[in-house]
Amino acid sequence: MKLNCDLGEGFGNWQLVDERTVMPHIDMANIACGFHAGDPVGIRHSVRLARECGVQIGAHPAYPDLVGFGRRSMDCAPEEITAMVLYQIGALRALCAAENTHVEYVKPHGALYNDMMRNDAVLRAILEAVAGAGGQLPLMLMATPRDDDYRKLAAEYSVPLLFEAFADRRYTPEGRLQPRSEAGAVLHDAGEILQQVRDLQRGQVTASDGSVIALAADSVCVHGDNPQGVATIVEIRRALGKD
Amino acid sequence: MKLNCDLGEGFGNWQLVDERTVMPHIDMANIACGFHAGDPVGIRHSVRLARECGVQIGAHPAYPDLVGFGRRSMDCAPEEITAMVLYQIGALRALCAAENTHVEYVKPHGALYNDMMRNDAVLRAILEAVAGAGGQLPLMLMATPRDDDYRKLAAEYSVPLLFEAFADRRYTPEGRLQPRSEAGAVLHDAGEILQQVRDLQRGQVTASDGSVIALAADSVCVHGDNPQGVATIVEIRRALGKD
Amino acid sequence: MKLNCDLGEGFGNWQLVDERTVMPHIDMANIACGFHAGDPVGIRHSVRLARECGVQIGAHPAYPDLVGFGRRSMDCAPEEITAMVLYQIGALRALCAAENTHVEYVKPHGALYNDMMRNDAVLRAILEAVAGAGGQLPLMLMATPRDDDYRKLAAEYSVPLLFEAFADRRYTPEGRLQPRSEAGAVLHDAGEILQQVRDLQRGQVTASDGSVIALAADSVCVHGDNPQGVATIVEIRRALGKD
Amino acid sequence: MKLNCDLGEGFGNWQLVDERTVMPHIDMANIACGFHAGDPVGIRHSVRLARECGVQIGAHPAYPDLVGFGRRSMDCAPEEITAMVLYQIGALRALCAAENTHVEYVKPHGALYNDMMRNDAVLRAILEAVAGAGGQLPLMLMATPRDDDYRKLAAEYSVPLLFEAFADRRYTPEGRLQPRSEAGAVLHDAGEILQQVRDLQRGQVTASDGSVIALAADSVCVHGDNPQGVATIVEIRRALGKD
Repeated sequence: MKLNCDLGEGFGNWQLVDERTVMPHIDMANIACGFHAGDPVGIRHSVRLARECGVQIGAHPAYPDLVGFGRRSMDCAPEEITAMVLYQIGALRALCAAENTHVEYVKPHGALYNDMMRNDAVLRAILEAVAGAGGQLPLMLMATPRDDDYRKLAAEYSVPLLFEAFADRRYTPEGRLQPRSEAGAVLHDAGEILQQVRDLQRGQVTASDGSVIALAADSVCVHGDNPQGVATIVEIRRALGKD
Repeated sequence: MKLNCDLGEGFGNWQLVDERTVMPHIDMANIACGFHAGDPVGIRHSVRLARECGVQIGAHPAYPDLVGFGRRSMDCAPEEITAMVLYQIGALRALCAAENTHVEYVKPHGALYNDMMRNDAVLRAILEAVAGAGGQLPLMLMATPRDDDYRKLAAEYSVPLLFEAFADRRYTPEGRLQPRSEAGAVLHDAGEILQQVRDLQRGQVTASDGSVIALAADSVCVHGDNPQGVATIVEIRRALGKD
Repeated sequence: MKLNCDLGEGFGNWQLVDERTVMPHIDMANIACGFHAGDPVGIRHSVRLARECGVQIGAHPAYPDLVGFGRRSMDCAPEEITAMVLYQIGALRALCAAENTHVEYVKPHGALYNDMMRNDAVLRAILEAVAGAGGQLPLMLMATPRDDDYRKLAAEYSVPLLFEAFADRRYTPEGRLQPRSEAGAVLHDAGEILQQVRDLQRGQVTASDGSVIALAADSVCVHGDNPQGVATIVEIRRALGKD
Repeated sequence: MKLNCDLGEGFGNWQLVDERTVMPHIDMANIACGFHAGDPVGIRHSVRLARECGVQIGAHPAYPDLVGFGRRSMDCAPEEITAMVLYQIGALRALCAAENTHVEYVKPHGALYNDMMRNDAVLRAILEAVAGAGGQLPLMLMATPRDDDYRKLAAEYSVPLLFEAFADRRYTPEGRLQPRSEAGAVLHDAGEILQQVRDLQRGQVTASDGSVIALAADSVCVHGDNPQGVATIVEIRRALGKD
């Protein structure tokens, strides 16, 4: 069960976090590619640090929306999405090449990720990009009870999938994330978070109504953009017996 | 003697030229990479057209200056230049991969090109990027009497060079371009342009004072951003016996 | 019945149209404010030309989406919309001040305009901006049978309204624009366009089913981004007896 | 002797500082206008906070370079500089209007500021913008022994000037800032900083060679982008007897 974390999300003079505090504790770094965050110099620094820490690098493409940090859905045509995802994967790849490392997977960011999960046209546009980029990159999606449907769809593009779950989000009995607008949607208690991670390791999760549902995740998404998040990552790592 | 031309220089809704009128007549397309021009969808269209026309594709990276079309020098640090050139080469490469073709060389654009020719620190930053990107890409420079100096410098980075000359610019007796601010710097007469191209094919050029100087160019830069330019390209092609 | 036209929609090196061919024939210029098009120098040129031609200047704010030309809906929060509209109105105003003229109204662009017409939260966010900018600027909306509802809503913000109709779009019997995806949605025949303009002058329009419906418009929107459009503007002007 | 401080320099999700810790301790806030930093929502928040704290608001226009934070000189034409400064002043003004306050002066940012101080063509382009914006805004420059020359030049544009000095920078015997590349150029010792501020209040400063030179400053520039800077501001305020 690998820990993945969004990184490289500064831009020029603006930095969200000192990544040296986070990188040693994760397995996979989703590195911003310049559209929602990440300037070339900053991306390169994140890439170098990931390589030094033996962390896998994933492309983290987004809608072109720096001011909105890629969190605002944009009504883009499929060919626009395909081309922008290709562009971002390639940009990151060249910076990886210069650091003697490479991109190992793709995980869309923010609103693009959300749109991909609820709109198959967006998912297909992304799959076309990932396939077109070459190199057999897997695409990371959110684990849901629909995993098999997604696998079938991705197989049309010969794109392997990775599934991730969330350590600090409450799941509905249907295996979906409880909307953030609802009370209790985000877990803040460290004990609850660690329990959820241990459950996920066993392929299950306890839903908001107390029922236990199956959820098969290859990776857990963790947050390293604040000191509290980093502390939680260290605890999750220990709970998973990874240290 | 190949003809190279800047293309892919629209942006979203804005297009400078219908590239189908130009592409069939050139040998090498310097395709914008998004920093001075070129959105992902537009770049992909140019790449596809280049492949269909059997035209070699070069990356045409620039300073990050859409509003200035990359024509304004920016006081960037070498590590910034290296990273931004890597980013742009990679972005174009992924769009090429999706179209089953590839980037074959790199030619910087506008102010970045000019700064490279007069500032070795900029040239070195670009060479580091081209080397780091991998794939043995050649870098295209302006042919001058200093070709050998540039070859030595590039050899430090194991980057091969290509040299280009200009069909429609008057050269000084020192083998430099006459500044545009001076009268006669730009050739407008078709006969003069064709004569200069024929001279370049023989490795020489007639300078502003009438003297004939040696100039070894692999390629001639032509302009396809207006109908008159396209007509001139067709004539140059014929003058070179390429059709 | 005034003719309004989107202008100032170049960006740096990219120009859609030579505005000197259009400006003399219109009454109101909706000038881009930099978010979907319009760089400061280009905006200033359009402002100067409008003043020289005695054309009223309207702010034409948009979503921040140069590459999409403001045509892609973005899921922005109301406070984001209010602030971005204020920013754009102010930017245009300063360029007008330097040219001894001023902004006389506001007409949102593209996807922001469409979102405003179908989502009252977007409309309210825009009204708050127009009110906050000061100077009693009217907001221009699309004329529909709901004009009075909009007037009531705008009155809460003390913002006067202007209504526009389209010369070249087919209306439904409900007084809405027929979707572009449907056949016949856009009028191409000059005779039909001129007839529709004459009808609009009398406060009515012939709908797609042949019925005649009432539509009260202060202005007709015309298109000046291509030579055919400019020719049509000249004919509309004559049909309206304005020359 | 007023304290001025650069603020509003976040962008969307990125914030450099919690401005509530700084704003109560300064007299003048130089608020970013969107070109090097500052999105519309963030600018509006800074404007509101300034008004609540009774702090004067200055426009802080910059070169269009978000990724470089406006710190990289760009080779812009005078008409480009004039138009971009107008645009930024206007944008800030509209956000001030919506918050019932107004822009009271203009202080260019970063590389634009530096270029203005060493290139009269840049200064003139900025003066033309400040004059054109209307409202008799003063322009803030760096106090040097050339103050009178600048006053004469600004008088051609009827633009009043304000002069600022730096609390934490060592001055040369010629009354210039010692280059940052030289040892001792930046004062870090709180005692030295406070002594320099007290000297400035008396119209003088002790230069790097120990000589005391005259320097007439209306305002001292302080830094609020880190907790140490804020602490220093509070001490400076006390040293000036302002609390």
